[in-house]
Amino acid sequence: MRKIWKGNFVYTPNPTTLCIEENKYIIVEDGLVQAIVEQCPPGEPYEDLGDGLVLPAFSDTHIHGPQYPMAGLGMDKELLPWLETYTFPMERRYEKMELAERLYKRFFQDLWLHGTLHISAFTTVHKDSAFRFMELMDEAGIGGYAGKVNMDRNSPEFLQEEAEQTLADTEELIERAKALHHVRYILTPRFVPSVTEKVMTALGQMAEKYDLPIQSHLSENKGEVEWVKALHPTSSSYTDVYDSFGLLRQDKTVMAHCIWLDKKERQTLKEKGVWFAHCAMSNLDLASGIMPLRDYMDEGQRCTLASDIAGGHAMAMPRNIVSTIQAANMKTVETGCPRVSFTEALFLSTKGSGAFFGKTGSFEPGYAFDAIVTAPIEPDHPLTFTRKEQVEKFIYGYESGQIEKRYRNGVLLERPFA
Amino acid sequence: MRKIWKGNFVYTPNPTTLCIEENKYIIVEDGLVQAIVEQCPPGEPYEDLGDGLVLPAFSDTHIHGPQYPMAGLGMDKELLPWLETYTFPMERRYEKMELAERLYKRFFQDLWLHGTLHISAFTTVHKDSAFRFMELMDEAGIGGYAGKVNMDRNSPEFLQEEAEQTLADTEELIERAKALHHVRYILTPRFVPSVTEKVMTALGQMAEKYDLPIQSHLSENKGEVEWVKALHPTSSSYTDVYDSFGLLRQDKTVMAHCIWLDKKERQTLKEKGVWFAHCAMSNLDLASGIMPLRDYMDEGQRCTLASDIAGGHAMAMPRNIVSTIQAANMKTVETGCPRVSFTEALFLSTKGSGAFFGKTGSFEPGYAFDAIVTAPIEPDHPLTFTRKEQVEKFIYGYESGQIEKRYRNGVLLERPFA
Repeated sequence: MRKIWKGNFVYTPNPTTLCIEENKYIIVEDGLVQAIVEQCPPGEPYEDLGDGLVLPAFSDTHIHGPQYPMAGLGMDKELLPWLETYTFPMERRYEKMELAERLYKRFFQDLWLHGTLHISAFTTVHKDSAFRFMELMDEAGIGGYAGKVNMDRNSPEFLQEEAEQTLADTEELIERAKALHHVRYILTPRFVPSVTEKVMTALGQMAEKYDLPIQSHLSENKGEVEWVKALHPTSSSYTDVYDSFGLLRQDKTVMAHCIWLDKKERQTLKEKGVWFAHCAMSNLDLASGIMPLRDYMDEGQRCTLASDIAGGHAMAMPRNIVSTIQAANMKTVETGCPRVSFTEALFLSTKGSGAFFGKTGSFEPGYAFDAIVTAPIEPDHPLTFTRKEQVEKFIYGYESGQIEKRYRNGVLLERPFA
Repeated sequence: MRKIWKGNFVYTPNPTTLCIEENKYIIVEDGLVQAIVEQCPPGEPYEDLGDGLVLPAFSDTHIHGPQYPMAGLGMDKELLPWLETYTFPMERRYEKMELAERLYKRFFQDLWLHGTLHISAFTTVHKDSAFRFMELMDEAGIGGYAGKVNMDRNSPEFLQEEAEQTLADTEELIERAKALHHVRYILTPRFVPSVTEKVMTALGQMAEKYDLPIQSHLSENKGEVEWVKALHPTSSSYTDVYDSFGLLRQDKTVMAHCIWLDKKERQTLKEKGVWFAHCAMSNLDLASGIMPLRDYMDEGQRCTLASDIAGGHAMAMPRNIVSTIQAANMKTVETGCPRVSFTEALFLSTKGSGAFFGKTGSFEPGYAFDAIVTAPIEPDHPLTFTRKEQVEKFIYGYESGQIEKRYRNGVLLERPFA
């Protein structure tokens, strides 16, 4: 199926290039971009996307679906008390299927609203509602990964699992997830403190057996790092614990936060091709520390952006792009390192994060036409803004409702569960 | 005139107390709060403000009206290049009255939208459009101060004034502003580098002669601080320059930023009762540094919050409250100082900042009934949230349109210039 759209296409083929193709035509075959051209091929029909901007849809490499209803609550706590007071009681509620379904539908409606069309999601320990999450994600047309979390130590009684059970449930979900279209299972040990060695060992083996990606948390908060050290005194680092259980699969593991890493950990993560899910808004909100994004980009780590809902308070990626620039600014104030530019942050939220999922996040040939169309600048605005300025205004001035359309694989996505 | 409203009243009588008066009645006489009571006095009519929250309207102690159209542009520049590239060319446009009027109307419409009902505003050097700003502010029902900026050195040719002219224009505006209802003139030397000693001297004298408040910028960026030192080598500090020209009037001067102050400057500012306009979002956006809010509050400085449009990218005070907490978090990460709480930040944006303008920003007896009414949590939300949580959700989840009504001095404010 061949489709042609006319529009103002904006994308970042690399971290320092902002391509703006104004009033061009994009040719899409079977959902994949073929080319952006000056003139519509003679005699072929096209659809006009209007005078707004067409940007690649966003990707979010670390998001907790069940925590969405508590976004913005308890933000003046630190990580570990915040987990105890807000997060765990909230996650407990997802045991009830009917409530889980209602809340998850709202979650996917808002992802759609904000144009985030690929995610790597944590759910809860509950097998059936975790699978319902995956089904709803599939139905909503959101691509990417989701997994039930594994928690068999140091967890509140009402969430803690038995080792055998969490493994059996995980394996069952891996099988069930094979029937889905857009969604793949991702192994999801919550973080080192809440998973026994037995379960980490078995998950490492499952990853190989089923060729699965893996997601977890790494080195977010100093207290957490100390805790891991106390639990694993013979490991050389937090990173080393994951590595020793085979949980840093070559090019297939995404780790959220990665704030307090030493040099050796950074080397290991680079060698293993681990994806760093940088949660800048969460860094700013929970005061865990600031990931040194500039340094990591410069040393060639695979940096991606993530909302970390509800460690960060807003799901919308435009807000998370701004937070990324701001958090990097704070690192500049602290160390004098160069700043992270607007174009770099936009790249990270689209092509950079998209690379974890496949060919999404750019309009180069071969990429899926996964796109958002923004509302045009009001026609009666007294000033005119360049297209570059319009991109900045869209990101910095983002409000719900400013995305008018979303496409995935060249198909218009309707609001799900409407 | 006596009026009674029923609602869920939320306010902060001091920095650490969040008062939530649910389903209470507020009695207002001639625009001033008399009391919040459990029962409506028998036989008296009241108006129900619904199931949302009623909060004090916000105040913004440092905002550049003419820069609003460029909010979000060029945020990856530093202060001085950003001024050259974006700010000065934008301000130049306000020479044209018709354009100025159209742009200023939009500015006041958005202040209204976001429930900021008191401001201390910079305009541009242009006398007539500066006065038009003041008239429109008055007509919109926004209270507070505005002034034309004085710039008679080190400025772009197209904005630089002659000393005699800027003083004559200022004095003319002081006279003309006496006819306004809600708006008072505030002396507005841009910042030390752009005002000659002659003009600073004369403005200090004018402040005494007309008993006027004063606003300016102080110690935002390290490069700027060095520049001031080079211009005034015999002054002991940036603060000392202002002080030596009588521009730190007792309890009547507001200084934006105040980031890189030494101990002696802090002591001087405290003695003079100078108001600190903390521009947290601007700190995060322009990477100038972070004002040590926690330390200043603890040492008893008069801290207030400001958007610094367009040094900060968003005017809405809920977003600036979040930025305030985030910037303070970054200081905590850096120095280990205690965090600034949600309640403290809410206090600063209402009663704390309101104190610069008079009795606004609280619902204690004697305060003006300057209030916003928020949309209620959707009735079909699957979860229930406490009122405290609803306050957090309003601030952290703020989107345009979530404020349903605004009152000033007990009068419903309609959208201006509609």
